[in-house]
Amino acid sequence: TAGPVQIVTITPDHKFILDEKKLKEILYHRRAQGKKISLVSIAGDFRKGKSFMLDFFLRYLRAKNQKEWIGKESEPLKGFDWRGGAGRHTTGMIMWSEPFIMSLPNGEEIAVLLMDTQGTFDSNSTVFENAFIFALTLLVSSVTVYNIMHNLQEDNLQHLSFFAEYGVLALDAYHTSPFQQLTFLVRDWQFEYETPYGFHGGEEVLTNRLQIRPNQHHDLELVRSRLRQCFRKVNCFLMPHPGLKVTNRREFDGRLEDIEKDFKTQLQSLIPELFRSDNANFVKEINGEQITSTQLFEYFRTYCAVFASGELPSPKAMLEATAEANNLAAKAVSKEFYTRAMEQHCGGDRPYIHPNQLDALHQEVYRQSIEKFRCARKMGGEEMSQTYLQDLENELAEQYSNYKKHNDSKNVFAFSR
Amino acid sequence: TAGPVQIVTITPDHKFILDEKKLKEILYHRRAQGKKISLVSIAGDFRKGKSFMLDFFLRYLRAKNQKEWIGKESEPLKGFDWRGGAGRHTTGMIMWSEPFIMSLPNGEEIAVLLMDTQGTFDSNSTVFENAFIFALTLLVSSVTVYNIMHNLQEDNLQHLSFFAEYGVLALDAYHTSPFQQLTFLVRDWQFEYETPYGFHGGEEVLTNRLQIRPNQHHDLELVRSRLRQCFRKVNCFLMPHPGLKVTNRREFDGRLEDIEKDFKTQLQSLIPELFRSDNANFVKEINGEQITSTQLFEYFRTYCAVFASGELPSPKAMLEATAEANNLAAKAVSKEFYTRAMEQHCGGDRPYIHPNQLDALHQEVYRQSIEKFRCARKMGGEEMSQTYLQDLENELAEQYSNYKKHNDSKNVFAFSR
Ligand SMILES: Nc1nc2c(ncn2[C@@H]2O[C@H](COP(=O)(O)OP(=O)(O)O)[C@@H](O)[C@H]2O)c(=O)[nH]1
Ligand SMILES: Nc1nc2c(ncn2[C@@H]2O[C@H](COP(=O)(O)OP(=O)(O)O)[C@@H](O)[C@H]2O)c(=O)[nH]1
Ligand SMILES: [Mg+2]
Ligand SMILES: [Mg+2]
Repeated sequence: TAGPVQIVTITPDHKFILDEKKLKEILYHRRAQGKKISLVSIAGDFRKGKSFMLDFFLRYLRAKNQKEWIGKESEPLKGFDWRGGAGRHTTGMIMWSEPFIMSLPNGEEIAVLLMDTQGTFDSNSTVFENAFIFALTLLVSSVTVYNIMHNLQEDNLQHLSFFAEYGVLALDAYHTSPFQQLTFLVRDWQFEYETPYGFHGGEEVLTNRLQIRPNQHHDLELVRSRLRQCFRKVNCFLMPHPGLKVTNRREFDGRLEDIEKDFKTQLQSLIPELFRSDNANFVKEINGEQITSTQLFEYFRTYCAVFASGELPSPKAMLEATAEANNLAAKAVSKEFYTRAMEQHCGGDRPYIHPNQLDALHQEVYRQSIEKFRCARKMGGEEMSQTYLQDLENELAEQYSNYKKHNDSKNVFAFSR
Repeated sequence: TAGPVQIVTITPDHKFILDEKKLKEILYHRRAQGKKISLVSIAGDFRKGKSFMLDFFLRYLRAKNQKEWIGKESEPLKGFDWRGGAGRHTTGMIMWSEPFIMSLPNGEEIAVLLMDTQGTFDSNSTVFENAFIFALTLLVSSVTVYNIMHNLQEDNLQHLSFFAEYGVLALDAYHTSPFQQLTFLVRDWQFEYETPYGFHGGEEVLTNRLQIRPNQHHDLELVRSRLRQCFRKVNCFLMPHPGLKVTNRREFDGRLEDIEKDFKTQLQSLIPELFRSDNANFVKEINGEQITSTQLFEYFRTYCAVFASGELPSPKAMLEATAEANNLAAKAVSKEFYTRAMEQHCGGDRPYIHPNQLDALHQEVYRQSIEKFRCARKMGGEEMSQTYLQDLENELAEQYSNYKKHNDSKNVFAFSR
């Protein structure tokens, strides 16, 4: 059965461990295979209703009937664990075990993934841990929901300054924004009578906060001026308080009848908008190319490795890592293409074929695979991609030699029978 | 009529301006004259119900009938301006124009002052501004209420790390904690079913947060280990949400009937406890001496001057400033003593006296005044206080020469009549 899966863990001595096996199980899920991907994540401080919100995302994605997705009045809310208690709960990064299938306007099916993250600022984690989680989330997601309480404030923007710097570098180098959609989700908005709930009110708050005024300190000018450049889409949604039954009662199980009407109304406005498949930023892109789950896997791996040092990398190091991940991902896609084609003709369940025929097959698939790599839009320049091309050639050669041996062994069986 | 008075303003180019005249009007208010002082302040993020809370403090201090201080059900809440709206409102530091008189257990009357501060993190102010306001508040107050939302978190402690460092220095140098009472006031506590409202629950949260665990990052160890040393008293109060009528309605005017019962119950528990005059930290002390409003005025001035540079001073510079303020304050008290005694005998409304008699008076009052300065417990060592003693001697000499001239002029009048 489907459920939340922890893919990144934080050890007691603050090391980040990516569970590649589990991540692979999700990203290489048969339903996602070869499909373009959308990764919608939620990040922000802990115990602020992130998981609770994600469970409504889940309801929407699972709903058979689009009109009644929000569910029944007395149905408990399940999925990602949300719960009361001031202590920490979710740590690291949690992905829903199964992709959801949606269709793009052109009919193409894509795989939609949901990710929950550990909150920032609780007393066991530190500035670095939080920055890491937030950074990784922004880098791998197509849509990042940044969950904040009460108001969009200076410190929320401060958390973004690192990304703005990296973003500017990436813009200069590759003429494309490295980040896609950032949605500030303001919870418990208290000033509805001044600025209305929803995206409209949010836009007002956002515009106001991003305004550069004379005499403003310079610390945040870069963030302010570049945020809208570095992210392809930045918006903001003002959400009402869900009511004291939600926040103060131990027995509350998430049922709609205990939630304030305003909150439910705004859920109905927020969620379908977040998951619009005609949103140009819904599908994950890197370097201007929509990517598949195979590629996303490589990005995850590379970024985790960059952060493993225990220090937040410089924006320049980040840029290099992205370029590397980009090449690695192109390599992975080419290799996957090779493997799939070869499996089809000489996989484990296929009969023995003549070595000459196998060689001809390899030649052709190899050529196409290398061609695929060459044509993929890559960051980091010719020199960097040359290294990865070399690796690809070696790995394909090794694969071919395995296929040959395997094919030969089938021949031996044939004789002995 | 009494009301809020802005004593520190922040200019658009981030300069801090102390309005000495207005501060003097409050601190030299006839009701406070010569009395020991208690300054209760509230600090923290903006738009989080600080001023709203202060207005209940006001009610308590004004109440004739201690039992019914909380007021009538339909009475609007007035005093410090609290209001809805996401934009900034109070900037800088605001003091209530009038001291309130309370009695210590020994019957001695003291003057109680209330101070409101601009919140941190709104988009117009910066890290420095916020740190400045918070620092000044902690330095001048006997009881600082640190208003925080939802939970006591890592970043709240981070704000205190500067003070812990300064505190440790001061402890080493003068064997006395430089800060008195710090009360974390957690608003909108959501986990009452786990940890109860009030000081008891707060103590639980505080103990938990200040615990040093193996494998914890070192950033905050100093704060954790020294907080209880640097502040003579640290406690924490968990406050419930006041209800959606309070937070979401433009028309809400603060009347009790619109506030949740739990909130009112906890107000009744918090406020009388905060203003207990038998609390050893209620009266402002510096360097182990209870101070009067005259001295407080000097501390305010000196600290503002230290921060004027536009950079947060080093803990060492802070320590020096405190020592200087301490000497300045001792000097001001001695001078005030001299002036008061002289006024009594040869002030503007007194008749002419013989120069010999005036000289004898001066000699005696001068001796006592200098003695007062010598005996005052002072920080900074003999060398530093020598300078201030010199200043005091010069200033008293100047005053004496003024009194002499003034006395002579009375004599001229006597002749011409
Ligand atoms: N104030 C407030 N509390 C909420 C909201 N949504 C959920 N909660 C409560 O916040 C607590 C923590 O929720 P959870 O989703 O686990 O928070 P997370 O740590 O951010 O994932 C639960 O008791 C929820 O009932 C909201 O919009 N505002
Ligand atoms: N969530 C919440 N809001 C409060 C609380 N107390 C007051 N408010 C509301 O918060 C808003 C700002 O209050 P104010 O006292 O001006 O905040 P300040 O900027 O911190 O002084 C007003 O609309 C109040 O009604 C509280 O305990 N919790
Ligand atoms: Mg969670
Ligand atoms: Mg205020």
